[in-house]
Amino acid sequence: MAKQNIFDNEIFFEGYKKIRDNEVNANNLFEIPALRSLLPDFKGKRILDLGCGFGEHCMEYVKEGADKVVGIDISKKMLEVAKKENSDPKITYILMPMEDIGQIEEKFDIVISSLAFHYIDDFGGVIKNIHDLLEEGGIFVFSQEHPLSTCHRDGERWTRDEEGNKVHLNIKGYALERENGSTWFVDDVKRYHRTFSTIVNTLIDSGFIIDKMLEPVADEEILSKYPQYKDLFHKPDFLLVRSTRR
Amino acid sequence: MAKQNIFDNEIFFEGYKKIRDNEVNANNLFEIPALRSLLPDFKGKRILDLGCGFGEHCMEYVKEGADKVVGIDISKKMLEVAKKENSDPKITYILMPMEDIGQIEEKFDIVISSLAFHYIDDFGGVIKNIHDLLEEGGIFVFSQEHPLSTCHRDGERWTRDEEGNKVHLNIKGYALERENGSTWFVDDVKRYHRTFSTIVNTLIDSGFIIDKMLEPVADEEILSKYPQYKDLFHKPDFLLVRSTRR
Repeated sequence: MAKQNIFDNEIFFEGYKKIRDNEVNANNLFEIPALRSLLPDFKGKRILDLGCGFGEHCMEYVKEGADKVVGIDISKKMLEVAKKENSDPKITYILMPMEDIGQIEEKFDIVISSLAFHYIDDFGGVIKNIHDLLEEGGIFVFSQEHPLSTCHRDGERWTRDEEGNKVHLNIKGYALERENGSTWFVDDVKRYHRTFSTIVNTLIDSGFIIDKMLEPVADEEILSKYPQYKDLFHKPDFLLVRSTRR
Repeated sequence: MAKQNIFDNEIFFEGYKKIRDNEVNANNLFEIPALRSLLPDFKGKRILDLGCGFGEHCMEYVKEGADKVVGIDISKKMLEVAKKENSDPKITYILMPMEDIGQIEEKFDIVISSLAFHYIDDFGGVIKNIHDLLEEGGIFVFSQEHPLSTCHRDGERWTRDEEGNKVHLNIKGYALERENGSTWFVDDVKRYHRTFSTIVNTLIDSGFIIDKMLEPVADEEILSKYPQYKDLFHKPDFLLVRSTRR
């Protein structure tokens, strides 16, 4: 099965680094706070961060009392930054595609994945491996692009009304799961679309109990500063799920 | 809180009866088979059917071995048909809005609701009452209009491509939960829109474990007979959830 490593593409890497460095973006305003709201206390916990990128989160987990953190990523470039900027004796970085985590011979209390699963073809296989890496009662929290985003295949994404407001979303083939090429800094970043019910049922069938689901939108404070994020009321950008290993 | 009884409106009732009598419709092709696929064996079970309508399903549950069936509906006209066409000593029909089920002093093994919750304002209150009516380990199965349907408020629902195929769906304000007037036989049938995450979290917060979620679409057999249902690949009409009382 193809394991996608778009992050080591030079153009993609620089574009990605730029938006991550920019303080005001949808990740920082919505995805990260929502993810944090779903995470339990880290004290004394063993944590696996899937797609750890630059390792900022791994470092935070240690600062907040985690006992041990393993961060994996498919991108050598990203992990070079992580090793330089976010090293700690309690953190181990491993260059590994998410599809290979079955090789990790450790057990964890918490598994976290931020905005990575929509790049994964074998979602069911990865979820099964996460289940096996968790202790009973362990917590699994992930975010991904919202299914109403990942379903977009071709053509204009939105139509707009006379004032230019978004109205109609291109959801052609929402129920047809598939790989979607998309243009994001470089051509042909592969994203995999899955419906709500597939995401939910894959978790349940792999032995997880779903605890909470979030589709974050802007609150009044954010809207007053960044009115452009009213668009999230039409289509949330992110879907987050917290679940517990049976 | 307003309890909506659109089914006793004469024009609505006749229109509704007509589509229910028609063998080929989305209910019979998709919703009912999906609902049945989620339901457990009825043998020896006590079943509560919320919004039982004409009582056909109550009768089927008895034929398949149910010990006792209670069917409630807000429509006197519907229950008159039910009493006439689907009476049985094991079935009790009660004229009652779904919001009042807390008055039922019985316990059940299975609670079923087919295509009614999108008419309910106090979803959380009804789910809480269902929890209290179920034995521990009891099963709760429901269908409702899909959130991508209930979110439609005003304006055209779809835009189409040059061949007339549906492409862009009007999902303006998907994340803004609200009452939507809609035109269905009569004006101003009130439907209540809730997002995926609200539906999921309301169940979990009320003490249910989610077992399975379905967004049914057409299979090849149905498509070969009724090609118009290819449109479900763009937007499934129904959402179904099976959950277990903790």
